[in-house]
Amino acid sequence: MHQEQRQRTNALLESKAIKRALFANLNSVKWLTGFAPPIQTGPNLFAGGPPLIWYEDGHYTLIVLDGQAGEAAGLAQDPDCTVITYLGYTIQQPVAGATHLRAALQEVVSKQPGTRGKIGVEMADLPVSLAQVLQETIHDGVENVAIDQWLVPLRMIKTPEELAKLRENFALTDVGHAAARKAIQPGQREIDLWTEIHSAVQQKAGRRMPLGNDCVVGYRPANIGGWPGELEIRAHDSVIVDLSTLAHGYWSDSCATYYAGEPTAEQVALHHTIEQALEYSIGLVRPGVAAKTIDQKTRQFISDAGYPVYPHHTGHGVGVTGHEEPRMILFTITK
Amino acid sequence: MHQEQRQRTNALLESKAIKRALFANLNSVKWLTGFAPPIQTGPNLFAGGPPLIWYEDGHYTLIVLDGQAGEAAGLAQDPDCTVITYLGYTIQQPVAGATHLRAALQEVVSKQPGTRGKIGVEMADLPVSLAQVLQETIHDGVENVAIDQWLVPLRMIKTPEELAKLRENFALTDVGHAAARKAIQPGQREIDLWTEIHSAVQQKAGRRMPLGNDCVVGYRPANIGGWPGELEIRAHDSVIVDLSTLAHGYWSDSCATYYAGEPTAEQVALHHTIEQALEYSIGLVRPGVAAKTIDQKTRQFISDAGYPVYPHHTGHGVGVTGHEEPRMILFTITK
Repeated sequence: MHQEQRQRTNALLESKAIKRALFANLNSVKWLTGFAPPIQTGPNLFAGGPPLIWYEDGHYTLIVLDGQAGEAAGLAQDPDCTVITYLGYTIQQPVAGATHLRAALQEVVSKQPGTRGKIGVEMADLPVSLAQVLQETIHDGVENVAIDQWLVPLRMIKTPEELAKLRENFALTDVGHAAARKAIQPGQREIDLWTEIHSAVQQKAGRRMPLGNDCVVGYRPANIGGWPGELEIRAHDSVIVDLSTLAHGYWSDSCATYYAGEPTAEQVALHHTIEQALEYSIGLVRPGVAAKTIDQKTRQFISDAGYPVYPHHTGHGVGVTGHEEPRMILFTITK
Repeated sequence: MHQEQRQRTNALLESKAIKRALFANLNSVKWLTGFAPPIQTGPNLFAGGPPLIWYEDGHYTLIVLDGQAGEAAGLAQDPDCTVITYLGYTIQQPVAGATHLRAALQEVVSKQPGTRGKIGVEMADLPVSLAQVLQETIHDGVENVAIDQWLVPLRMIKTPEELAKLRENFALTDVGHAAARKAIQPGQREIDLWTEIHSAVQQKAGRRMPLGNDCVVGYRPANIGGWPGELEIRAHDSVIVDLSTLAHGYWSDSCATYYAGEPTAEQVALHHTIEQALEYSIGLVRPGVAAKTIDQKTRQFISDAGYPVYPHHTGHGVGVTGHEEPRMILFTITK
């Protein structure tokens, strides 16, 4: 799994003369290995910290909670990966995940030959107690180098394996949209419509499925997004239904506006303009075009059509997160 | 909100001569302040790190992402708390949450008078990049002291405010159980039963609601728990339905076994024994009784009734996590 991701990372780290690195960002770890534990009931209580990857000379050692080892089973065939687990919950011992994780990291790091030189570290995610393990274990003049966000640009170009995972998620959100189109009716609350959508998605998936993002009736204040609540959907109301699912660690993201009963002529005209804008905008997406150009031209299209311009981005990437580079916003990073 | 929690913490830190501390554990922050952002679509993408609390001489400064400030609105009335926000997502700028969080922490810490002495730090949760802010900002001979897990024993005794939050969640799981009892039928898959339960809970709550834990048909291998899948529920099958919800940052946890159609005589007899064991076990819960005593006596009860003893804990606390001290397991922490 995810071998191409690791090859890109090898090339990047080699180009910066970094032979050892410790990844601690959830999204980095997921992208590098495909390791995607469930998220919808929060972080695993028995984990002693984030999942870690110790990188050395092109080899990736993933350190995860024992109860999540199944999520990393797909890596068993990959010669450039090793999976190490540490003890989480048992009924025989007090919970001590952080202690076990530290010990696991120490064992992995101390096995390595004493390669001198810099160690790349995801500083914004690595807990202090795990950084101390590096200091205590490596005695060859360690210099830690921050490598936070280094993988973000690498993540922009999707591999065929990632495209398959994304397509599976977009098929699931399509099921949700079909359910929304069928279920919407005056007299429902936003949450009632939402539960129909969520049930359809989970029944199609055959398992629990996280579901974002928005389900808001048009008359709600600040109605460009939000979680469904108890507001009633009335005849002719528009409802924004923005759906994301998370199968295999990848997020879809797909938004549509539905109407309860027949839309008005004004709503139809507006919807038609948005549809044209979307087609126009998709036509702008080509290699070499700056994201901000797509943003600006799409805003201009809406403005030229006589509507106020939206207080929202024009688009963004999807992948191991539901919202990532390239971001089509008013300004972009200039290097 | 949560003033009694902070008073207990003040007393603990004062008893250890700690005048300054940095909390970075999600559960510590939630318990100290009631700050409970949504979890069911994963960590907020635009957060630059965990929510933080800077503690100094009994005052608590909560530092959170701007998009989550609403979740901390209840603290505005509390004189022992200040809420600081940092910039997350905008359509005008590249995403840089970690940078903004570091700056916010630096500003909070540098405002404090130069009190000498130890700084308590949740080392297993504080990222290295934020620990660096302490080092760079405080120049009075800082000694960091690990305070991980210090609040765990304080969390065992619930305040009236916490009990109200817990009861609201248990009422929601009761709605889920009523839906399970009504919906279960041969020919369903586990996931079909689950979606009925989840819809009932969310419709009652009037909003999205995380829902744990298990929905497993009796013939599934390793059937003591697990997430619902595509296995079919057949006539007479037992189904474990273990439900937790998360309203106001507190988790319920409530399990029952249902049968598809009429249970067999053997199933009725077993269920009756379990019911008696539960009553017996609840009767053992009194101040001063060791958790492991309750565990051992309950196992003995089951064994005396002629059944094999369960490969599971006997019980555990609930609160800001769905599984916390006191844990009724085979061994407990001895101090």
